[in-house]
Amino acid sequence: MPDILTNMKISIVGTGNVAFHLGKRLVEKGLTINQVIGRDEAKTRWLSEILQAKQATFAKNIDESSDLFIIAVSDTAIEEVAKKLSEFIDKQCVVHTSGSIPSTILQPYFKHFGVLYPLQTFSLTSQPDFDKIPIFINNTPQYYIPFLKNLAEKISPRVYELPDEDRMTLHVAAVFVNNFTNHLFKIGSEILAKQNLPFDVLLPLIEETVNKIRHNPPLSMQTGPAKRGDNVTVEKHLAFLEQQAPQYDLLYTLLSISINPDLKINK
Amino acid sequence: MPDILTNMKISIVGTGNVAFHLGKRLVEKGLTINQVIGRDEAKTRWLSEILQAKQATFAKNIDESSDLFIIAVSDTAIEEVAKKLSEFIDKQCVVHTSGSIPSTILQPYFKHFGVLYPLQTFSLTSQPDFDKIPIFINNTPQYYIPFLKNLAEKISPRVYELPDEDRMTLHVAAVFVNNFTNHLFKIGSEILAKQNLPFDVLLPLIEETVNKIRHNPPLSMQTGPAKRGDNVTVEKHLAFLEQQAPQYDLLYTLLSISINPDLKINK
Repeated sequence: MPDILTNMKISIVGTGNVAFHLGKRLVEKGLTINQVIGRDEAKTRWLSEILQAKQATFAKNIDESSDLFIIAVSDTAIEEVAKKLSEFIDKQCVVHTSGSIPSTILQPYFKHFGVLYPLQTFSLTSQPDFDKIPIFINNTPQYYIPFLKNLAEKISPRVYELPDEDRMTLHVAAVFVNNFTNHLFKIGSEILAKQNLPFDVLLPLIEETVNKIRHNPPLSMQTGPAKRGDNVTVEKHLAFLEQQAPQYDLLYTLLSISINPDLKINK
Repeated sequence: MPDILTNMKISIVGTGNVAFHLGKRLVEKGLTINQVIGRDEAKTRWLSEILQAKQATFAKNIDESSDLFIIAVSDTAIEEVAKKLSEFIDKQCVVHTSGSIPSTILQPYFKHFGVLYPLQTFSLTSQPDFDKIPIFINNTPQYYIPFLKNLAEKISPRVYELPDEDRMTLHVAAVFVNNFTNHLFKIGSEILAKQNLPFDVLLPLIEETVNKIRHNPPLSMQTGPAKRGDNVTVEKHLAFLEQQAPQYDLLYTLLSISINPDLKINK
């Protein structure tokens, strides 16, 4: 069976963490990146060398012959980048990689637009395990869906077609389990630091918290004073926080009541 | 060098998750459990067989010759159990295993009392990695400290002496990173379930969130719309929550402002 990706030319727009990791993964999977397009010349050269691709800035050298342009830039830069790119290309497909921006942000600029969203937080220093990362795609009109699907399946076995509305759902859920969770870790570290206790004493507990939800719904794994209706401990903790870290007092209360609406907190 | 633990007799009071895992670990490390003391006869028999120990209920057969009694029961049962136990023993050392109860709850009942607190959430189904679990001990008067320290070091290489006040610090921090984090996972799963998306699409993101704080302080790893002052996305998420899950609206706002006090949320 001929590979739908054969002879398809792909350009990556952007030089950040997502551009780096997606580009590297595609190259590792045997695909060729035609061109890396960036604003910063040094960074563009850096990434194009890693990906063995041609390079371009928005001022010059954009290769219009690519069939797909993957815009992997920060949410706030997508529209500006799309606008610039639209000066060069016409019938090609353009996707962005953001979880929180609708694909329709690209609609004024391109006939074929869509999203290729890997649900993961990327950093330059840690190696993502793409085999586990779900990829969500959409495309309007649907002409390029088979191509995007094939491409995404080169990146990860877990590919889902998902309309813009549902991607918002995903992103809100991701904020809770990633951004907000990290903030709770930070609060934990801050509380310990006040007593000169090292944060890493909490790591085994954090790891076990995650282990437990690998195979069980989080609701069934809930433990702690709030869950068991232990008002005495909840109030002792609040009194402690009032002394030691009053800025987290309200957050403790709200999270406890969210876990157990029947809690009676007298303070 | 003679082992300080030689000829020391240990009884475990309780038959729950902590009693089970601590007892098993001690036996695996070559110690002998003298007796398992429980309220429920069937459970007591079950655990005493696993630990190859004698068994007793509070009504009968308590072996007063043990030197240490480890009360591993739920927080709310500690005092009642201590009271019953105190009918039988006198000069021996009694510790409980709770993070949130001061050792002094045992003071009215025993001359030698203390705590042996493993900072972990235990369940019957998952195997704790004791080599990583920190153990916090204290003892009043300090007569038994060398013994408790040696014993704890059989369980884990990470043993800390910690007064009651600091154990409270630990427990509050643990509530944030374990109980509250699990609740955020539950919220994530709930939001996804409304759109028929499976929770496990979030697992790689959750794992990466934890990976990042193994070697970096959580504060430096914070990302997301709140952190970068992206009011537009924060407000879109809040509008989404108002429609889909209004019960988490306030929590989203409070966590976002806690991450970034400069956020301007207009709603």
